[in-house]
Amino acid sequence: MTGGQRVSSFLHPPCPLAEAARQGLRAGLEALAPIGRDPGTGGYWRFSWTPEDQRLRAWFAARAEASGMAHEQDGNGNLWAWWGDPAAGGAIATGSHLDSVPGGGPYDGPLGVVSGFVALDLLRARGVPPARPLAVVAWCEEEGGRFGVACLGSRLATGAIDPDQARALTDPGGLTLARAMREAGADPGRLGPDPERLGHLAAFVELHVEQGRGLGQAVGVGSAIWPHGRWRMGFQGTADHAGTTRLPDRHDPMLPLAQVVLATRSAAASHQALGTVGRVVVEPNATNGVAGKVSAWLDARAPDQGRLNATVEVIRQVASRAAAEHGVGLDFEQESFTPRVELDAGLRRRARQVLGGVPEVETGAGHDAAVLASALPTAMLFVRNPTGVSHSPAEAAGEDDCVAGVLALAGLLEDLSR
Amino acid sequence: MTGGQRVSSFLHPPCPLAEAARQGLRAGLEALAPIGRDPGTGGYWRFSWTPEDQRLRAWFAARAEASGMAHEQDGNGNLWAWWGDPAAGGAIATGSHLDSVPGGGPYDGPLGVVSGFVALDLLRARGVPPARPLAVVAWCEEEGGRFGVACLGSRLATGAIDPDQARALTDPGGLTLARAMREAGADPGRLGPDPERLGHLAAFVELHVEQGRGLGQAVGVGSAIWPHGRWRMGFQGTADHAGTTRLPDRHDPMLPLAQVVLATRSAAASHQALGTVGRVVVEPNATNGVAGKVSAWLDARAPDQGRLNATVEVIRQVASRAAAEHGVGLDFEQESFTPRVELDAGLRRRARQVLGGVPEVETGAGHDAAVLASALPTAMLFVRNPTGVSHSPAEAAGEDDCVAGVLALAGLLEDLSR
Repeated sequence: MTGGQRVSSFLHPPCPLAEAARQGLRAGLEALAPIGRDPGTGGYWRFSWTPEDQRLRAWFAARAEASGMAHEQDGNGNLWAWWGDPAAGGAIATGSHLDSVPGGGPYDGPLGVVSGFVALDLLRARGVPPARPLAVVAWCEEEGGRFGVACLGSRLATGAIDPDQARALTDPGGLTLARAMREAGADPGRLGPDPERLGHLAAFVELHVEQGRGLGQAVGVGSAIWPHGRWRMGFQGTADHAGTTRLPDRHDPMLPLAQVVLATRSAAASHQALGTVGRVVVEPNATNGVAGKVSAWLDARAPDQGRLNATVEVIRQVASRAAAEHGVGLDFEQESFTPRVELDAGLRRRARQVLGGVPEVETGAGHDAAVLASALPTAMLFVRNPTGVSHSPAEAAGEDDCVAGVLALAGLLEDLSR
Repeated sequence: MTGGQRVSSFLHPPCPLAEAARQGLRAGLEALAPIGRDPGTGGYWRFSWTPEDQRLRAWFAARAEASGMAHEQDGNGNLWAWWGDPAAGGAIATGSHLDSVPGGGPYDGPLGVVSGFVALDLLRARGVPPARPLAVVAWCEEEGGRFGVACLGSRLATGAIDPDQARALTDPGGLTLARAMREAGADPGRLGPDPERLGHLAAFVELHVEQGRGLGQAVGVGSAIWPHGRWRMGFQGTADHAGTTRLPDRHDPMLPLAQVVLATRSAAASHQALGTVGRVVVEPNATNGVAGKVSAWLDARAPDQGRLNATVEVIRQVASRAAAEHGVGLDFEQESFTPRVELDAGLRRRARQVLGGVPEVETGAGHDAAVLASALPTAMLFVRNPTGVSHSPAEAAGEDDCVAGVLALAGLLEDLSR
């Protein structure tokens, strides 16, 4: 990883490969478009170890073969495509993930994987073989959309989650990850830290659509990822008849939930943090019944650990007081947590040089790059999102911006692989 | 329907048929016990036109045959078993329903159907043929647990709901009633008012487990049913990323929901009414996403129409204000409504005479008897519920109280069928 003295020739317009980048992007995104798409809402439902996931894996394999790359699925369900021999070491990997949140958009994840393949095609088109192996990777279950732990594949690979704990994770239907993997023909016994594979890598670069409105131009370089976590709140009340149970006799878990939802917004606002209750499961969920149990999930993020702690502590106190007030039991447990991550300073400097003074972006969104930062130098490139909407069918990215993203990624990879 | 001058001999202890009543009750409840039961919670999941429903229908047919009764399923999915020729007219029907709320208890509904069969067996055991036809009926989808409209079978039979509207009702998976019926081998084209069948009846008596703690002895006579209704509230916001969308940019439908949940409790309390939000559906329901849409259902009941209107109006105003505050769209529509129903005064007097001065009970719970009261004289008998819990696996009724209920029902039917 020498070089990086000049702005990449990929970034000098008009780049003769821009049209190839555009065609490659279109082909990749169009091939993925129908997989797991709800025709009614246009939202994506792509969860690990489902039939949709199998189609995404088949696409990855076919896409790698189309570029003449060897490919494999590692023990944690992550997909790898190789240009060069990984065992040579010092490899540069790029990629992102193919799974979605429930009802998610088309770019969050897939844009980074497609861009990785297209960027490597552009390097091949230049005809200069890289001095290092290059890889495209698709990390498994980044969104935690099925088993509740975000960045599951990269956490497993880096040892950030215990494989026994991972195997016992359950989906909303109660199926364990172990069983879901077996039913999909994978071996859950192979889950766990993968230092050998990660040891082949010198750096990981993730390209991702920006998810807020923090980027005023086509491409930016990620600087840091806010500390963020998920907490599960279980309110255990008593299921009862809505038409006969006197109000003072009730133990209705919906009432403390409501207080927590409102407290989450106000606590986040007063600490300049983000706090969201976006997932709620009510049992038995009957119109004419007082709920017996309400489970809800808190997502909280802040620029620094102090503000995050303060936010979550206020919410926890409100939950505790409200549950007691209604005679309702409360579990309040952290499901996942990622401390603030500064992306690699050297890579950021290289990226700014190669890309010619693009802005840096701090983000509240978690990414595999943040998890992998504990194991190797990682960098992120963000592509502008004109609406700032993400995790929704309305998620958007302009094609010209996506092309600029691919060219920037190709330029950075070219520089890093010298 | 003459007679009713003296307390029924079924009620003079020790009744020689009490042991037969106990055995008949046990056999019936035990035969039903496994159908649709969640082995984990003990709650029942019995929804119309499902495989569980088919098992309940098969039980009804077999139970009728065991007592030598002809049986049929009417065009609205209600089940009838006959002792005598319905065409003779002036019949007395008893019964209740076999479906449950999600995760409901074992008595709400089935106790009335089983007690009806056992009561008729006791009359047969007496050897005195009734002067009128007698019927046991199981009304379809009383709880509205699948298609959202309570007392659907009796509403259809009395013309209280339009059959086209009924056919278009959807279950939580989006399946219409019409399609669910066809898939279960029933013809939705036959749904609709059934004046001929109801015209055969002179009275309907429904025995039901009491669902609050309003009854201090084994059996009581229903006097009135509170006005009650269901309203669906749709909060339409914008699905978004929980980690990147600034709080002021959000249109989070969970926040107005929370305000409505709290307003429901306070409005009900201040109007001596009951108000419950027990069913909530969040889309896409992702931990790391701001919700795009929240649907919630309000169940509200009060002793009189004025207090009910006042309660719902406060809740509607809070919903409207809270939705506007968060830039969220709101639908607030009544799904079903039943005005206050006074059960038939003549039948109540007869019941009090025959049963020897039992107490009268006013209830907030809707029943098929309340719907049928618009078409013919109806009465209700309630069996004490020691805990007052219902719509829950913890729903209870003592066996001695259930036996007293069957004997009371037999006594009343004997009197009415003279």
